[in-house]
Amino acid sequence: MTQIEDGRRPVVVVLGVDRVPLPGLEPLADQVSLRFVASVPELEDALAEADVVFLNDNFRSPALRHAWARARRLQWVHLAAVGLDTVLSDGLAQSDIVLTNSRGQFDEPIAEYVLGLMLAFAKDFPTTFDLQHRHVWQHRDTENLAGKTALVVGAGGLGRAIGRVARAMGMRVMGAARTARTDDPDLVRIVAVAEIETVLPEADYVVVALPLTPDTRDMFGARAFAHMKPTARFINVGRGQLVDEAALIDALRSGRIAGAALDVFAEEPVPADHPLWDLPGVIVSPHMSGDFFGWAPALLELFVENFQRWRQGQPLLNVVDKQLGYIPSQAAGAEPAS
Amino acid sequence: MTQIEDGRRPVVVVLGVDRVPLPGLEPLADQVSLRFVASVPELEDALAEADVVFLNDNFRSPALRHAWARARRLQWVHLAAVGLDTVLSDGLAQSDIVLTNSRGQFDEPIAEYVLGLMLAFAKDFPTTFDLQHRHVWQHRDTENLAGKTALVVGAGGLGRAIGRVARAMGMRVMGAARTARTDDPDLVRIVAVAEIETVLPEADYVVVALPLTPDTRDMFGARAFAHMKPTARFINVGRGQLVDEAALIDALRSGRIAGAALDVFAEEPVPADHPLWDLPGVIVSPHMSGDFFGWAPALLELFVENFQRWRQGQPLLNVVDKQLGYIPSQAAGAEPAS
Repeated sequence: MTQIEDGRRPVVVVLGVDRVPLPGLEPLADQVSLRFVASVPELEDALAEADVVFLNDNFRSPALRHAWARARRLQWVHLAAVGLDTVLSDGLAQSDIVLTNSRGQFDEPIAEYVLGLMLAFAKDFPTTFDLQHRHVWQHRDTENLAGKTALVVGAGGLGRAIGRVARAMGMRVMGAARTARTDDPDLVRIVAVAEIETVLPEADYVVVALPLTPDTRDMFGARAFAHMKPTARFINVGRGQLVDEAALIDALRSGRIAGAALDVFAEEPVPADHPLWDLPGVIVSPHMSGDFFGWAPALLELFVENFQRWRQGQPLLNVVDKQLGYIPSQAAGAEPAS
Repeated sequence: MTQIEDGRRPVVVVLGVDRVPLPGLEPLADQVSLRFVASVPELEDALAEADVVFLNDNFRSPALRHAWARARRLQWVHLAAVGLDTVLSDGLAQSDIVLTNSRGQFDEPIAEYVLGLMLAFAKDFPTTFDLQHRHVWQHRDTENLAGKTALVVGAGGLGRAIGRVARAMGMRVMGAARTARTDDPDLVRIVAVAEIETVLPEADYVVVALPLTPDTRDMFGARAFAHMKPTARFINVGRGQLVDEAALIDALRSGRIAGAALDVFAEEPVPADHPLWDLPGVIVSPHMSGDFFGWAPALLELFVENFQRWRQGQPLLNVVDKQLGYIPSQAAGAEPAS
């Protein structure tokens, strides 16, 4: 993979917030020519010479969707994020360019976040915080998580990390993924997404941990919500476009489901006049569930490790199946739903 | 224990919110004379004839502190709560009257609540909810619980339940109790409370799960807070009087510690003008951490089970050591700190 004609140094283009050299890339400095770019035109200019592109700013990453065609000898693109929907164009998918991402870095932090959301619902923290603001002492009984049922949609690393924390709380855990199976160590019983309506009525918490692909887009609409319990809470840490937000708002307003915690949205940032902000039973957070203190250096480290593998001709970590739109799990049949 | 002279029916006095017969006590109805009382004067009147008193309303339970001396043949008092500080007078402690409580019913719900509070701090939910109210999209990085250290003060059933959930999150867990030991299955390493200052500096979360006794009163004051990290959070689900609230407020205002989540207070309800309501980094909840939906029937069931034991002369569940002021754990050395 690492053939560079005529012994010249490979050119690594780093797309970031600015053009300042990134601390953490020093190990590459004497092996490659590093070029730091921070805008679409700069990326387009640099691509002609690029052997490797490191997309280190998730907000600018969509620039590659169009610009990649300017590349002449690009071999490899690495993404400092997990979701591929912003960069994976049909053209890139059909090219020989290898695409890797930062899968796995956010699984445990997001699983903690999801458990926090479930506990916030069960223990009614939104009401507690609101009463505190108003200096009102008002005792309420609250729910336990133990004994409740969590349905985790998506059986990749993230879905399974969520399954682990939910099981540790004594919850009953089920999964939904592309392929049904009954031997998953974390999610135990996994139903096929095509059959999800058979298990939605059992779930107290439905947690969406899917990649966005053409097959998963709008998976959660009126039909799915109609199969959920009126006491159920819907939690989305995947992508906003997995959900028909208008149908979700209807389901919440009509009491068809009890609540939702959303960290991702069809439009981000969520506009100030969006109805979700004020809907009772809804928790809105700004796409932050996985962003632990230290994520940026951790992702840089992963890129540096992958670069050393690339340089030495070893197999790269986190190679995306560009046709599927995600990285199939190593374990046979352990793909996330698509 | 269940000797009743001359074959008459034992008299069971039930102190509750009102005088209406309690659903759930039907199994006793043909074995005993049930008397339902709902005020101090009614309790005092009824005590003269009582063989058993069931204190089924925690707010009225302190009535027994003075009234118990009116009893002439009282053998046993059962409390539908865990904390004994409200009922255990010196006189009652020195009497032959057996005292039992509802220990164990709230351990798992409170452990869930405490984990919810730790995640609320780690994931900065108070800020998220506040920004949501204001329709403001503002990304922040947040903390993980995994790898952080929790110091659980109190190694009874509650402290150990908290230890279990914290360990399940990948936290490092330590305990503090009356007796040091290193083999606890849930808290692993337990230091003696007398040595707590040696471990306070290591804790990211200090969780108080102690009974209130003369020895534990005001255990957390300026000296303890001075030994904590500036990033530490203090969580109290024991009793308000375990903490010197003025010292806690000083520690929070001066940045000596980062936050506190309090479910119990020196004065309850907390007065509307109390400074804790508005202190940054503080979560105030109204003494509700253990009160899961269904706790009332669960506690009634426990009393009915204990009554059948009493009637049949079997050992009672949850017999309090009235000198200690709590129930020592079965396991040798497994007492909560005192």
